[in-house]
Amino acid sequence: MTRLRPFIALDWGTSSLRGARLDDHARVVEERSFPRGILTVPQGGFRTAFDECFGDWMSAAPDTLCLISGMAGSRQGWAEAPYCASPAGFAEASARMHWIEPGRIGLVPGISHMSPRDGTPDVMRGEETQIFGAIHLLGRTGGVFVLPGTHSKWAIVEDGRILSFRTFMTGEFFALLSTHSILARTLHANAPFDETAFLDGVMHSQNSAGLLHNAFSARTLALFGRMESDALTSYLSGLVIGEELRSQPLLSGIPVVLIGSAQLTARYAMAMTRLGCHVVAPESNATWAGLHALRMQVEAQTETRP
Amino acid sequence: MTRLRPFIALDWGTSSLRGARLDDHARVVEERSFPRGILTVPQGGFRTAFDECFGDWMSAAPDTLCLISGMAGSRQGWAEAPYCASPAGFAEASARMHWIEPGRIGLVPGISHMSPRDGTPDVMRGEETQIFGAIHLLGRTGGVFVLPGTHSKWAIVEDGRILSFRTFMTGEFFALLSTHSILARTLHANAPFDETAFLDGVMHSQNSAGLLHNAFSARTLALFGRMESDALTSYLSGLVIGEELRSQPLLSGIPVVLIGSAQLTARYAMAMTRLGCHVVAPESNATWAGLHALRMQVEAQTETRP
Repeated sequence: MTRLRPFIALDWGTSSLRGARLDDHARVVEERSFPRGILTVPQGGFRTAFDECFGDWMSAAPDTLCLISGMAGSRQGWAEAPYCASPAGFAEASARMHWIEPGRIGLVPGISHMSPRDGTPDVMRGEETQIFGAIHLLGRTGGVFVLPGTHSKWAIVEDGRILSFRTFMTGEFFALLSTHSILARTLHANAPFDETAFLDGVMHSQNSAGLLHNAFSARTLALFGRMESDALTSYLSGLVIGEELRSQPLLSGIPVVLIGSAQLTARYAMAMTRLGCHVVAPESNATWAGLHALRMQVEAQTETRP
Repeated sequence: MTRLRPFIALDWGTSSLRGARLDDHARVVEERSFPRGILTVPQGGFRTAFDECFGDWMSAAPDTLCLISGMAGSRQGWAEAPYCASPAGFAEASARMHWIEPGRIGLVPGISHMSPRDGTPDVMRGEETQIFGAIHLLGRTGGVFVLPGTHSKWAIVEDGRILSFRTFMTGEFFALLSTHSILARTLHANAPFDETAFLDGVMHSQNSAGLLHNAFSARTLALFGRMESDALTSYLSGLVIGEELRSQPLLSGIPVVLIGSAQLTARYAMAMTRLGCHVVAPESNATWAGLHALRMQVEAQTETRP
């Protein structure tokens, strides 16, 4: 490989837009963040938003490469980068890059997976890049990769490729319950995190009755004065995360790769450890690492072209 | 027994107030309904609301007996009728009646149940009266009694007494998901009921991944054009009700008594039948029947007093 072009990595999600200039070794040179998620950008306004936020970086060197992961590649985003069908890895994702400007500004495609049982589709967009990053950062090419969030993803990775995955609407259920349900009346959404109450929720959720039943305990424990309202939010968080963990078959023994924000992965690690599961997590930003890995793939492909 | 006093049965819930004059054989003589659930009544305003809605019935005969079931007996209601601990039946409920006017206007107590596994409390208020009514109407003194709703109740009844029960927040989860979640963007809340989509949801929900995962299929099936948005609401209803049914151990073979509104019990019956469960349902209003049964108990107790 002769030399690498200057590189900008963008994580353009539903509610935020983050970007970084990375050097040839994936180190962050400069980073920016804007509250300009795709939901704030009008149709046809993506080029303008991009130029406003990163135009100076792009024009600093005319051969700069920019790769963008996240919902910017969805139907509601800048342009639709069609999903790659699983199994998919670096090769498929870089080959199916959707180019806004050929070889210059590319949208990373999401990945779809059809359930082998009944063909029900599942999708991820952005998380594939984080998984690629974690593979790169940890040097692990296989295992269970978990990305907690509004819509958590559980992926099975083998030989650096995503074989299958499932989405769990855990973060969204928590938000719905703590904001709009009857439980919202008694809990304090802004109470500090209570580890004991959280783990109580995790353990309580492991019974077979399921979240539809167990969530009600957040009401009755308050009603009977058995839990302080300050503890209820953490307890509910434990119930919902515990429910997600309950439906994963046989995790004990298998180390799980946990990717995401420090606060959320800390909760998942706490819950998983309590349930006897071994957890590893990359220490650097998995999205930047993933976009850097895809950049290397793109540059290698460019180089081999006649 | 000499003669029965005139009787008024009231079902005073969170969002509505219904009343009926019943004859000596529990037949409805006259019925009224008001949008004056307890949430619309200011503290201290219950007597006035009661008089406005039913004062003429009460004053028509000075010895009229009125029994009230539902949330009017809660801490936020007319007065708190403390919960009876399970197991509890007619005897306990009538003995623990909370009298607004002694022997004349009584609030039926709710029932509480502590999980034998970890002591987590569960509560019902109003449903105990419906169960008593169904026992009376069907002549069944035992079995599994199911009351679908915002907070569905599953009760184990033996010898006419409620031994244990569990709450499932099924109706509330459905409302949250169809109103406030990401799924709300694609589904048509007012689309007509689609039986095929509903049963698809029921069957899809029987896998071990659980509702946190399965609910996401309502999004992806729309995204991939695999389900019409008109069908999604029924599908989601099937997913949520199916999740409630999935967590009930071994229902096949045991006939289940289903109590509630015609529309909702029809859905549950459809889902349960599909899952191989035998369903029976009372054909008359279970609340009126339950309040009548409690009335007979109260009158018998009064009669035996010296």
